[in-house]
Formats: sequence, C-alpha cells, structure tokens
Amino acid sequence: MITESGAGTVADLGEWGLIAALGSRMPAGPLTAVGIGDDSAVVGAPSGSVVVAVDLVLEGRHFLRSWSSGYDVGVKAAARSLADIAAMGAVPTALLVALAAPGSLPARWALDLAAGVAAEASRAGAGVVGGDTARADSVLVSVTALGDLDGRAAVLRGGASPGDVVAVAGLLGRSAAGHALLSAGLTSSSSLVAAHLRPAPPYDAGPEAARLGATAMIDISDGLLADLGHVASASGAAIDVGTSSLGIFLGDPLAQAAADLFSRTGTADSPRALALSWVLTGGEDHSLVATFPPAAVLPERWHAIGSVRPGSGVTVDGAPHCGPGGWEHFT
Amino acid sequence: MITESGAGTVADLGEWGLIAALGSRMPAGPLTAVGIGDDSAVVGAPSGSVVVAVDLVLEGRHFLRSWSSGYDVGVKAAARSLADIAAMGAVPTALLVALAAPGSLPARWALDLAAGVAAEASRAGAGVVGGDTARADSVLVSVTALGDLDGRAAVLRGGASPGDVVAVAGLLGRSAAGHALLSAGLTSSSSLVAAHLRPAPPYDAGPEAARLGATAMIDISDGLLADLGHVASASGAAIDVGTSSLGIFLGDPLAQAAADLFSRTGTADSPRALALSWVLTGGEDHSLVATFPPAAVLPERWHAIGSVRPGSGVTVDGAPHCGPGGWEHFT
Repeated sequence: MITESGAGTVADLGEWGLIAALGSRMPAGPLTAVGIGDDSAVVGAPSGSVVVAVDLVLEGRHFLRSWSSGYDVGVKAAARSLADIAAMGAVPTALLVALAAPGSLPARWALDLAAGVAAEASRAGAGVVGGDTARADSVLVSVTALGDLDGRAAVLRGGASPGDVVAVAGLLGRSAAGHALLSAGLTSSSSLVAAHLRPAPPYDAGPEAARLGATAMIDISDGLLADLGHVASASGAAIDVGTSSLGIFLGDPLAQAAADLFSRTGTADSPRALALSWVLTGGEDHSLVATFPPAAVLPERWHAIGSVRPGSGVTVDGAPHCGPGGWEHFT
Repeated sequence: MITESGAGTVADLGEWGLIAALGSRMPAGPLTAVGIGDDSAVVGAPSGSVVVAVDLVLEGRHFLRSWSSGYDVGVKAAARSLADIAAMGAVPTALLVALAAPGSLPARWALDLAAGVAAEASRAGAGVVGGDTARADSVLVSVTALGDLDGRAAVLRGGASPGDVVAVAGLLGRSAAGHALLSAGLTSSSSLVAAHLRPAPPYDAGPEAARLGATAMIDISDGLLADLGHVASASGAAIDVGTSSLGIFLGDPLAQAAADLFSRTGTADSPRALALSWVLTGGEDHSLVATFPPAAVLPERWHAIGSVRPGSGVTVDGAPHCGPGGWEHFT
C-alpha cells in the first residue's frame, strides 16, 4: 500500500491503488456531473456541443525522465491537449488521463505527474474526470481534453482571408531555446528550461480571440511557420510573417541564450539568427496564433506578426524560409 | 507515399500521411460538427452533457500481433471504450483514436486498424472525429469515446438496492475461452477465438436498460464477479450470483472448448468447472450487467443471473467464490 510520501513503485501500489491515489489529487471541475470512479464521466456541455481533442506524450519522444520530473510531464501533457481546446475558441471543461508505465516506476513519480496534471487543469479551469492505467515498458500519457464554446461558433483553421492580420498570444521560441540549453548541458537560464518542461499556454486568449472575431486559429505545437502553414493551406491563402514585428519575442532571455549557445551549435549565422530560428520554427510553446479582420482592435497581449495574402504557403519578409520548418513524428 | 494497397511502413507514410490515410477511412457520425483535421473536434451534445471515457490497448498486454490482426485490434480498442459509454445508459456519438507505433509497423497493419475502429464505431452509430499519432517501440492505442444520454440520468455503479434483480445482456466467458484456446494453440473453434479478438458488446442494451429503470450498470471488462464487486462496493450492498441461471452461457461452444481444454489445463475439477470459471471470472467480453427493480419486466436478451442483498461483497450460490476473481494490471 502506498504511503503519502509516495514510497515504493506503481507495482507496489497496484492498479486500483494507483487509480485511487491519482484520482484523489484531481480537481473536480465546475461542470462535472459524474467524475472519476464509474465506467464513464459525465460533463456538462451547456452549448449543446462539446469540443474534444486527444494528445499523446511519450517518454523518449516528448520528454526524458532525466530532464523532466513527473510534475513537469503532467503539466506538459495537460497543456498540449488544453491548448487544442483553447485554439477552437472554447473554454476547457475536463480532462481524462490515461497512463501507461513500467511497474518499476516510482510511485512518487506517478503522484507528481498527477499533481502536474491537476495544477494545469486547475489553471485552465477544467476538472479531471477519468482515465485509465496500464503497464508498459516506458511512460506514455494520453490526455483527452473537453471544452465548451459558450454559444459561439468554433474558430477553425480554414477561415483566414487575404487582408486579415496574423497575431500571436503567448511566447514564441522559449521552449525551443530551453530544449537547446538542456541539450547543451546549460541550464542556468531557468525560465527557458522551465518553458520547455512546463509550457504555459494562454488558454483564455482562445475564447478572447473568438469574441474578437478571429477568422482562424491554431495552437503552436509544431512551430510558428509549420502551424501557419496548416492555416494557410486550410484557408486557401498565403501568410507572410514580418520579422520586424518579432522583436518582442527576440529580447532576453532568448537573446542571452542565443549568445551563449551560438558558438556551440554551428547551425546559425549569428546569435540573432539562432534566436529567430527558435521563434519561427520552435514548437511546443503552445501559444495561440490567430487571424483577425483588418478592423479588429486587438488587446495588448495579441501581437500582430504578419498578414494574410492571396496565394498559398508561408513566407518570411516576403521570401520562402530556409531551414527546418517543423516537426514530423514518423519520418 | 502510401499506396491504397498499404505497401511500406508507417515511417514511409510519415505522420501527416498516416493521419490523412487513417482519417479518410473513418465514419463522420451524425452529430459531428467538426471532424478530423482541426485542433479539436466539435460533437453535438443534445442532452447538454457529454458522457466520456478513455481506454488504453497495448501490444503485449492486451493483444499480440501474432494473434491479432490490425483489424482485430481496431475493433477491440473501439469496443472497450464504446462499452463504457453504453454502461452509463448512453448512446455512443464519437471516438478519438491516438496511435503510438514503431516506424517499422507495416502501413497495411495501421490501415487495417483504422478499418477495425471504423467498423466498430459504425456498428455503435458513432463517428471517428480526431486523434493523434506518435512513434513508440510497440503499438499502443488510446481510444476516447463520447456519448449522449438522450435526456436520461446516467446509470451509475452505486444505485443497486437489496431486492434488485441482476441481469446480463451479451455473452459471458467467450473471450476467456477464446484466449484459452489461443494459448493452447487450438484455434478450431473460431467463434470463441473471434469473441476474444473482436468483442461485440451489445451497445444498444445500455440505453435500453436505462429506459427499463436499471438502478446500476457496468460493462464486464475485468470479469463478471470482479465487476459485480465494483457494483456491490459502490452500492453498499451484497450481490449473489446463482449458477443455475448460467446454463444459457455454459452450452456450446463453451462446453466443447472446455471439454477440449480440460485435460490440458489442470486448473479446474471438471470441464463444467472450467467453463464456469470462464463465465464467472473471464473479462473482456464487454457485455453489460445491470441491476433492476424487482418489478421490472426484462426483454429476452437480459438474462437474470442473481440478486442484490443486504451486506457486502459478491457470492456465488451464497458462498464466497474460490479462485482468481479478475484482473489487475500492476500487481
């Protein structure tokens, strides 16, 4: 039997013990009618529809246990799915978490993961209402997120029109910079490492964008250019990003990290180019990028970074971007 | 690029190619407002709430690729989650499927899995509205199922009262018998092997039970006695199963398989005892067991098998059941 200190392994805990220990740490959520403990959960869907997405987070692929604590992985797994809800313009309502793990996994790690999921769900206003556990050779977390549109239409990827303004809410390049620092063994700039280990998407910016009339929106998981590529393709339009508008993202701590890493990487022409590559192509910040009609008046946290034009594809300062553009899992 | 024949591997296909190939094979579903291809799906929830569950299906744990085709795994993964929806008395509306797989997995296998998910979703009346893919060392499928209660209250595990009748819809012991046949290398009795590889839960019996006034319900995934244990515990009552009522489950093909396997297993006192152990403790048929008020008039497919009594725990013919009772993943 587990102690509150989390001594022992998940095998010591057993499946039911693990479920009970995880479940007791989860926020219920304001719209949860039936939570953890039955065959299914029941969650309110006041709009008469539900927004839903699922994401996988795998050890060795999306995180390393040598870099990430259980808490970090819980936050990241929750954030990835919750950001998908926000990117539709919806308010997150609930999460379901399925955990596959080795029997030898320390119970403390699993409890920390639960704490991370719980904290991020609470930050988003969502309950954790169900899940599953199974034994596997490495840790895998599947998080399903639900949300409600509050009576609005969903903001899809395909609604951008030439003339629309492209704007970002949240940070860019921080996760990629943190990953580069970790890869180089430099972890002094802790806010960037923290941004990589525990992304903090601006969930409420999603419904805000919908209320402001956003014509298209996506969360930045594969990288700004790659994800804008999805918007451009779905919208049948071109998108141009202006680097002169990216200064707000390129200052410290990114500039300092780029200066520290430039000589070590050899992948960029200058520190600024390295920082720019993180901003343009680094994924996993899970910030939101949306397109707005030209007349929209954007609150301060939405930074205009480009425009929608006739045509197809994504350009930077009017030209194709050279270099890796994103992330594809199977190739 | 994949061909329609499914030549090559999922690595050849790439992540986007895999998603596109899988997505094009999926039923849309009558309540799907936004399906595969955006950050999230949007599914109708006409009751103003959504029923939701997630289940993991892992290679080496829930299936072996030497026994199960991709199609089989697709059916089983979908059925496990869909049965959780039915067990609340809800009608399935949508599935999301997350697939982690080695890059070397034949594309044909992944497409067959998609076909199995699609077929079972269609049988349940649900659409397949989203998912995720990632690379892993072995195959893992996480299926999230959604459902709608059609205005009814959910049927929970905790509502059984002394005097209630316990009844089952669907088959018992078939999956366990099929597993025993496969383990022994005997696969001639194909209906049992098929029942193990491709469970066929009676989804519409779930809403039917709710309309009949069921006081508690669960899907039989861990074994009849283990799952009735959850109902008894949640309801604060005892449940007794009468073996004289189980004859309908114990005939052929179960009796024949028990006769064939009795001499090989050494785990039972007689062929009938072996068959009875499959019926009482074999999981994964995903049939439904529910409790009904004594005055309920049950349609033919609901077989009364026992009764709810004051007290706690589950008994068979009034006595504790000897032998393994279920399935726990981490011990």
